[in-house]
This record gives sequence, C-alpha cells and structure tokens, in this order.
Amino acid sequence: MKRFNLLLLLAGIFIFSSCTNTNTKETETKETTHQQPNFIIIFADDMGYGDTGSFGHPTINTPNLDRMAEEGQKWTNFYAASSVCTPSRAGLLTGCLPIRNGMSGDESRRVLFPDSDGGLQQTETTIARALKTKGYSTACLGKWHLGHLPQYLPLNHGFDYFFGVPYSNDMDRIAGLDHQESCFDPKVEYFQVPLYRNNEVIEKPFNQKNITKRYTEEAIQFMDENKDNPFFIYLAHSMPHVPLFASEDFDGKSARGTYGDVIEEIDWSAGQLMNALKERGLDENTLVIFTSDNGPWLLFDELGGSAGLLKEGKGSTYEGGMREPSFFWWPSKINQGVIMDIGSTLDLYPTICNLAGVEIENKDKIDGYDLSPVLLNEKRSERNEIFYYRGDDIFAIRLGDYKAHFKTRAGYGDAKPQEYNPPLLYNLNVDPSEKYNIAAEHPEVLDAIMKLKEDHLNSFVPAESQLMKRISSDDENYGDISL
Amino acid sequence: MKRFNLLLLLAGIFIFSSCTNTNTKETETKETTHQQPNFIIIFADDMGYGDTGSFGHPTINTPNLDRMAEEGQKWTNFYAASSVCTPSRAGLLTGCLPIRNGMSGDESRRVLFPDSDGGLQQTETTIARALKTKGYSTACLGKWHLGHLPQYLPLNHGFDYFFGVPYSNDMDRIAGLDHQESCFDPKVEYFQVPLYRNNEVIEKPFNQKNITKRYTEEAIQFMDENKDNPFFIYLAHSMPHVPLFASEDFDGKSARGTYGDVIEEIDWSAGQLMNALKERGLDENTLVIFTSDNGPWLLFDELGGSAGLLKEGKGSTYEGGMREPSFFWWPSKINQGVIMDIGSTLDLYPTICNLAGVEIENKDKIDGYDLSPVLLNEKRSERNEIFYYRGDDIFAIRLGDYKAHFKTRAGYGDAKPQEYNPPLLYNLNVDPSEKYNIAAEHPEVLDAIMKLKEDHLNSFVPAESQLMKRISSDDENYGDISL
Repeated sequence: MKRFNLLLLLAGIFIFSSCTNTNTKETETKETTHQQPNFIIIFADDMGYGDTGSFGHPTINTPNLDRMAEEGQKWTNFYAASSVCTPSRAGLLTGCLPIRNGMSGDESRRVLFPDSDGGLQQTETTIARALKTKGYSTACLGKWHLGHLPQYLPLNHGFDYFFGVPYSNDMDRIAGLDHQESCFDPKVEYFQVPLYRNNEVIEKPFNQKNITKRYTEEAIQFMDENKDNPFFIYLAHSMPHVPLFASEDFDGKSARGTYGDVIEEIDWSAGQLMNALKERGLDENTLVIFTSDNGPWLLFDELGGSAGLLKEGKGSTYEGGMREPSFFWWPSKINQGVIMDIGSTLDLYPTICNLAGVEIENKDKIDGYDLSPVLLNEKRSERNEIFYYRGDDIFAIRLGDYKAHFKTRAGYGDAKPQEYNPPLLYNLNVDPSEKYNIAAEHPEVLDAIMKLKEDHLNSFVPAESQLMKRISSDDENYGDISL
Repeated sequence: MKRFNLLLLLAGIFIFSSCTNTNTKETETKETTHQQPNFIIIFADDMGYGDTGSFGHPTINTPNLDRMAEEGQKWTNFYAASSVCTPSRAGLLTGCLPIRNGMSGDESRRVLFPDSDGGLQQTETTIARALKTKGYSTACLGKWHLGHLPQYLPLNHGFDYFFGVPYSNDMDRIAGLDHQESCFDPKVEYFQVPLYRNNEVIEKPFNQKNITKRYTEEAIQFMDENKDNPFFIYLAHSMPHVPLFASEDFDGKSARGTYGDVIEEIDWSAGQLMNALKERGLDENTLVIFTSDNGPWLLFDELGGSAGLLKEGKGSTYEGGMREPSFFWWPSKINQGVIMDIGSTLDLYPTICNLAGVEIENKDKIDGYDLSPVLLNEKRSERNEIFYYRGDDIFAIRLGDYKAHFKTRAGYGDAKPQEYNPPLLYNLNVDPSEKYNIAAEHPEVLDAIMKLKEDHLNSFVPAESQLMKRISSDDENYGDISL
C-alpha cells in the first residue's frame, strides 16, 4: 500500500511539473465532444460534507440527492476552490485559483461586502462566457457574490439571464442589528439584500422564505424557454447560509430542525430539476452537478451544518472547510459509482468546456483538470493535488493521499494561527479526520510537497486583490464576520 | 417541531409506564406470522457508525452494504445493547438489558476474559433457543464471548452448530507480549485463541487472516445442509476487532489501509451471503440484518474505525459508543427506505420471534420491541427510549429526541468519570454530535427522563454479575484493556 501511494505521489509530481502552466488535458471522449449537452450546476452555500443521507447524516432526509448518488456518481474527495464564499465561486466559474485573478483577500476581507468596490474582472472567462461561443443559453440563478457594481454583475460575465442576489443573505442588515443575534433568531425584514432580475433590483427586501422555491421555478422556466438551444444553468442557492429560511412546505418538517428543513428543500429542488429534465426528455442530454461552496459554518451551532467525520468547517483549511458532498448525474451516459479520486470545483470549467466542444483559450491560467474521462470512461482523475489557501496565504497542500499543513487556524474565532516546521502530515485516505500526524515517518513526502509548494508559488504572480477595495469603511454592518 | 417532540416524549412516557414489564407488543403481521422465514444476523465487532459508504466513509468501499441500504432499510438510529462486547452480545441474543441477566460487570471487568468463570445462564433464552421451538436449524458462526466454559458454549444455548471462537481475537496472547504493541503490529502467532467446531477445539492458534472467509464459507454450507428447514445463522465476525487481519484477496487493497481491508472483506462476505440466498431462491424468504456490537476502538488510532459525526467510540456512552451502522434486507418483503426511528439490538429477539410465530414466554423480562411493523408495514417503531449503561451503572438515557447524560467518561484511558447535576441534555435529532447542552431550556424533559430513570431502576433487581467471577487473577495477559 505504501509503495503504491509513493508511486502515485511521484506520478503526481511528474504530472504537476510538466503541467504547471498547461494542466488542462483535453481528453478524447468521442461520443460527447461534438454533442451539445446541457449543464446544470447546483451550488449550495455553507453545506457540510456530512449533510446528506449518503454522506451519513442520520436525520436529514435527502432522497433526491441520494438518487443522484445511486444513479450517478458520488464523489467523496471533491473540493471547493476555497473555504469561503467569494473565492470559491470565482474558482468554480473560471477554473482558476482565486489568487490568480484577484478574488481572494487577506484576513480582514475574505469575501466581498456590500461596501466593496471590486469584482471579477472582464479579463476573466467564466464557464458561461466560454459556452456562449458554442451557442448556449446561460442563466445565473441565485447568489452571485463576485461583485455587485454594474460592471461585475452576471450579464457582464457571459450570462443571458440573472435572477438572484448580489451577495450573501446575511448582508445589508438594518442599522444596529448584531450579526450573530440577527442570524440566530432571524426575521425576513432584518436583511435588506436586493433581489435582481438581470440588472434591475426588483425587490428589497425579498421574502427569503420562498427563495429556494423561486430559484427552482426560474430554473424550470429557463429550461422551457430555451429548449431549442443547449443551456447552462448555474443555480447557486442562497441557503443553507444563515439566516436560515424555508418555505411553508418545509418549515418545521425535518427531524434535524431548521437547518434540516432548509437542506430538505434544497434536496426537493434538485428532485424538481431532475424530474423536469426527465419529463422534457432532456435528462439523457444533461449533466447535473451538485456541490457546495465551502463547509458548514460551525459558529452557528445547530443552525450550521456538519462536516461529518471531517475536521473543522467553513473558513478553515482542514478538510471540513473545503471537502464537499458532491454528485454528478447524467442518466445513461455516466459511469455510475462511488468515486474516491480527487476532484475540485476548479475542474468544472475544463470538464464542461471539453464536453461542449469549447476550445479553452487561456489554458496557461487554468488550474482545473478535465474530469470527463472519469465521468464517462472509467478513467482515473488526473488531479493529484489540492492547494488550500486561506485568503492569499497558502496554508496546506494535498499531494496524492497526503496532506501537509504549513499553518492551521480555526475557521472563525479569535484563536491565533499556528505554524509548523516541519509541517503536519496526514494520510487523508487512511485518516480522513486528520488526527494522526505522520510527518516523522515520511520525510520524503514532505520533501515532495515542499518542492510542489515552491514550484506552485513560482508559477504565477498573484493578481491585485479585488476584495481589499472598498467604497467606504464606515458602516458598522460590514464587519468581516459576514461571509 | 418542539411541540411535536414534547408530544412524542409524553407518548414515550406513557408507553414506558404501561409497558415497563410487558413492553413486547406482538403486532399482527398476517403475511408473515405463519410463515417460517430464515434469519441471518451479521454482527461486526468494533465497527464504527461512519465506516460504510452510505454512512459517509470517503474511502471504505462497501458496495454490498450499500446495496442492503438501497434494496432494504438503512437505520440511522439503531443501537447496540452496550458499548462493549460481552453485554452487547448478551443483549442481542436474549432481548434483555445485560444488567438483568448478569452479563455486565464493573469497571475492572467489563467483558468476559479467558480467566472468567461465568457466562450466560441456562435460565436465559436466546433467539436460537426460541427458534428451536419452531423447528429451526440454528448456527453460531464466529465470536461467542458469552462464556467459554463447556456449560456456556453455543450448543448449550439453542445452537445446533458452532464454528468460531469463544472470545475476542486479541486474547490468549503469548506470555510477555504487551496488548497494545501486539495489536498495533500483529502476527498471527501472537494470539493463541482457540477455534472451535461445536464443543471441540480444532485449531490453536488458527490463521486469523482467513477467518472472515471461513465464517462465510461455513454460513453458505450451513444454508445448503439445512435447505429443507427454516434456518437461523448468527454470523458474529471476529473483525474489525484488533488485531486486524484480512485474507490475501483483501490485504493491502483498500484506500483506507488495513482497517479498510478488513471492512471491505466483511462487505464482500455480506455480498456472498446475499448472492447465495438469491442463487438458492431463498432471498425472498430470508431476513438479513447487519449491525455491530459497539463503536470503534479509538485507542488504536487508524487501526480503529470512525464513528462519523458521532462523539467518542467503543466503551463510551456517547453516541459513538453504541449507535451502529445497521441494515435490514429482505427482497420483495421489506418496506424499502431510510428509517430514522429508534431501534436496538434488544429488539431483534422479539422481532424474530414474532416473524417466526414463536410465543415469547419470558415477556416480563424482555427489553425489546417488535420491529416487524416497521420492517414490513410502514409503521413507526414503538421504541422511544435507550438506556446507556456503563457496566452496571446507568450513565445516560435517551427519551424520544432527547438524551440526558448523568455521567460521562471516555471509552478508554485514565480520564475520570464526570457527574452532572443537572444532567447534560442534547437533542439527538438536531444535534447528533452531542455538542450543545440544552438542559437549561428544557427542565420538563429532564424531569421526564429522571422519572423514567427511577421507574426503570425500580422495575428489576440486577442479577449477580457473571463477569466478576474469575478462576485466577494471576495472568498478566488478562488486563481489562482487552475487550
């Protein structure tokens, strides 16, 4: 076993060395390259690794997500691009580590806030913009959080349609309300977040209780209005980010309490989309992907989720911060099963581009791998590494089975960061809960990871941070607690 | 939700009050009462709540147990009768809390050891003995651990056939070997545990590497030799109790390391049994049950399992000590789904008796509930409480959604027990990881649980402990570490 891991690790180093700047392989998948499949990405907000039935939650009922696992692929080593919201979303949509395109900040500004002056630059290419080159209809439904000034909104990033909110649902609190108190005992009117249709604010505040349902209805309507085109729907739920709200049909129904109500409504929503595809005869030509932007917000006790057996949650570079419950569903196309290979939301950009027949123009900048050979052809994932950034600082690296922590810090709270020299080392496959430091037994692995870190940091120049730009810093409501 | 829970709780108290001594309901399930279904109980040893695919383990591959979940029932609130071996097995086979029949001890002797002089008394009725009254063929394959003196062996407790070991696979170490060292780096010859066929020792030591495979072969052979009778097979694996051993086909194959190898062989074994039933046309007339005797032995680091999102492990009265990954499989009969109701291995005795048409003679003593209405008829489980004993001391009680801890103590190690007044209180459905004490908010629940505790303790006189009886106390190998 150890020999096998070492080989994998060395293979990983080789792949990395030869691909640091061109690591997007366009694999031949003949049966799909020239089709125009539809794509739906369902992106939950702050949902934990352990918060669905097939990821082991005892009291959250998720029959539709369980069905995605049974009929499709359940990925058990799939990562968000960051442990907090803005950089995670930027990574998913562009296939680039956020450090490369200015979408990460420092400890004081880990995401964009209502007073932010920055956003995703026009020089960046999103999945939506890439798909537009092949005639796709594209919709962004839900939470954006990549810049709310007009030039940064979804319609300026390749989306034909936007129905959703510019940032998190806990922002724009009415004056004088404490963030934690208002989220622990929320009322709709506490949060004055605007709801947009395209570039117009249509409601402020909107009724958060119905937001999951409305996103779902919008998605199905978009399918109907674009049935003659291939389409891409990016459905980024506002939930289960606090403040938690569920519709009347779900409120008070889950054994898990309010958090469970919200997850069960998201599960219902996924089921509605799968059923709608089936009814329209589109299911065999649509890849549906489900994952989350980061781990559970543990600060909110039982109103936050659970990372299951993983350590820590949102904001942290332990596994609980970035490993997500993830499913790929594509009836009659996908190679059904549980996938233990490493994947990342960074891989969705090259995977979708390949499946849609889009030539990737900015290959040098892309940190993703094409996963379509794993989805369709029983191949192994080419991804062998994960870079765990906290803001603009690299805290940890996974290489094959092994993860080294150079620094650790609780996702939230006042605890100071800890530095390690030598780094902490865990075998994530054998010890997914990151309990047993084996640095002393594997100096050769640490050497390989330190070399990878050096090569990685030398391979790019960080872009100017968009997250540090702000219009004013006077408003008491824009503390860095709200992510 | 809260109102609902309180109603459930009050309902629970009512059920308990009216049934303290007669809590076995024989529910009418017409289609099965007069049939003679076969029963197979697969009982893992020290397997954690989080150690299968559908309970959320990322790198243990359990396609057969996943299939039991998909085709049958996955129970997410199913408990062993105790957090350690001997009392847990006694509870499963007799349907009685171990405190009632002398099968628990104090902190110095929590299980039987090779120097023990006690065992399960002839006055007790096992599932096997009950089924003999209806003409069943009965086999005990695997670990017994209910007394190894001749009068206590399986053939004296209603089993027609025994192939297995009298106690744990880490016992009978050769002189001078440290328990922990020998289990962390085991060799077959370190452990001189005898292998029995019926009442005869046939090998000593036996090759532990092949033991899972041999139990499996014996089970299939027993099916073949008893195909004209209804049969009961109690397959109590020796694994994944340390020392861990897997056969050549599994050794070094799992991404999870040695512990994963062992679980994947147990999973393979379950698949072999399901396939054998199908090939013989017996699957639709056989209820297969999978669960474990207690939680993971955390003392053994990555050689121990994972309780997933649950707290602590083997030996502890936190959830990780007693809640088990549990499946019920019965093609074309079972009402397929995820069951969040409370169940216990104590319930298997009345459930199996009812399904086999056996009249229970010792109803007053039985702590189990008949679960067949849940298995077959979409009914709710009648069980509303769990008593968590540590040896002969009651540490915690679950009533409905709520669990109160009167005392806590780490499963193993030197940490002293802690007492709480008022008790700690958790809502297990909302907070399965037992993180948020809500005692101050729910005095009425604490009152109800304290009343239940008092009624429970007044409802029986503890039997004389069999675990405290020993032949000699001189042998250094029989420390209380080995359970």
